[in-house]
Amino acid sequence: MRKIIVFEHVSIDGYIADKHGKIDWAIRDEELTKFSQEGEETVDMYLFGRITYDMMASFWPTPMGKSVNPVFADILNKANKIVFSRTLKEATWENTEIVKHVDKEEIMKLKHKPGGNIMIFGSGILVSELAKLGLIDDYQLLVNPVVLGEGKPLFKNLPEMISLKLIRAKEFKSGVTFLHYQPK
Amino acid sequence: MRKIIVFEHVSIDGYIADKHGKIDWAIRDEELTKFSQEGEETVDMYLFGRITYDMMASFWPTPMGKSVNPVFADILNKANKIVFSRTLKEATWENTEIVKHVDKEEIMKLKHKPGGNIMIFGSGILVSELAKLGLIDDYQLLVNPVVLGEGKPLFKNLPEMISLKLIRAKEFKSGVTFLHYQPK
Repeated sequence: MRKIIVFEHVSIDGYIADKHGKIDWAIRDEELTKFSQEGEETVDMYLFGRITYDMMASFWPTPMGKSVNPVFADILNKANKIVFSRTLKEATWENTEIVKHVDKEEIMKLKHKPGGNIMIFGSGILVSELAKLGLIDDYQLLVNPVVLGEGKPLFKNLPEMISLKLIRAKEFKSGVTFLHYQPK
Repeated sequence: MRKIIVFEHVSIDGYIADKHGKIDWAIRDEELTKFSQEGEETVDMYLFGRITYDMMASFWPTPMGKSVNPVFADILNKANKIVFSRTLKEATWENTEIVKHVDKEEIMKLKHKPGGNIMIFGSGILVSELAKLGLIDDYQLLVNPVVLGEGKPLFKNLPEMISLKLIRAKEFKSGVTFLHYQPK
């Protein structure tokens, strides 16, 4: 079955973006870029919340996106993508489907379809919704050596705590720590 | 100079207690208890915020506290302690001084006095106040393999982000990861 993998840069205090939505504190050096790209190898589909979708869709298809990281731009542009949004009318980013809300049955169908793994970046609200429904198979967190103090949390308003199993921890030269968890 | 060391059990999402103030999700097995006690060896003073103080003061001096972890109960009971509180009239826990508010000069004087290192557990508001003033020398975080979703954050309302340097990351059998940071 296809796995749903959450892959996120987070701060020490658990935020995926600062209070202005900025992610420029996340370290993206050569070592981490290589590591992230290796992580994409099993993936052929991406899920986004509306805010992350807007940010990504306005960057990766542009000449700027393609020049910053041509390999990743190509992977993302070509992959099938779903944006979850109640209000978005049209998705201009190629290969993107709009889905109005998270439906457990539909997500399970998606996971049972043939294909590679499914990845989520950013999209804190979507991650929290899927986590609540027990639909996330893999949490891969890059803990950046920074405290933001305020910001957009990866997890929000979960009705109960989620116990995970640590698969491994890996230290990078930049001071980022990769923490890999799966549900128990 | 004496270091101020923050030593905390945190959840993956950066909370030191759940929304009810509970910390029973924090793993305290033999391996972690030994590791924590080794960390105490250079320490001879503890700082607390009011809420953490109340919790600790109602446990460690009691027969229950002394039986759960006699070594740690003895260390804590005998050590000099400061509780920061505007309202507390009397500190019944032995060797405890009440200080009304955080004053940078006073904390610097304390750090320059002869003695061992100074440790803080819990006490999120106090940690945030001291972090803002650049007074924390060492962040030692035990990241527990659990997402709380809501709770009491270690860091709150910092006016600006704090960049830290990762000293080391260490994996425990229980799935806890120790992340050790210092200011840059």
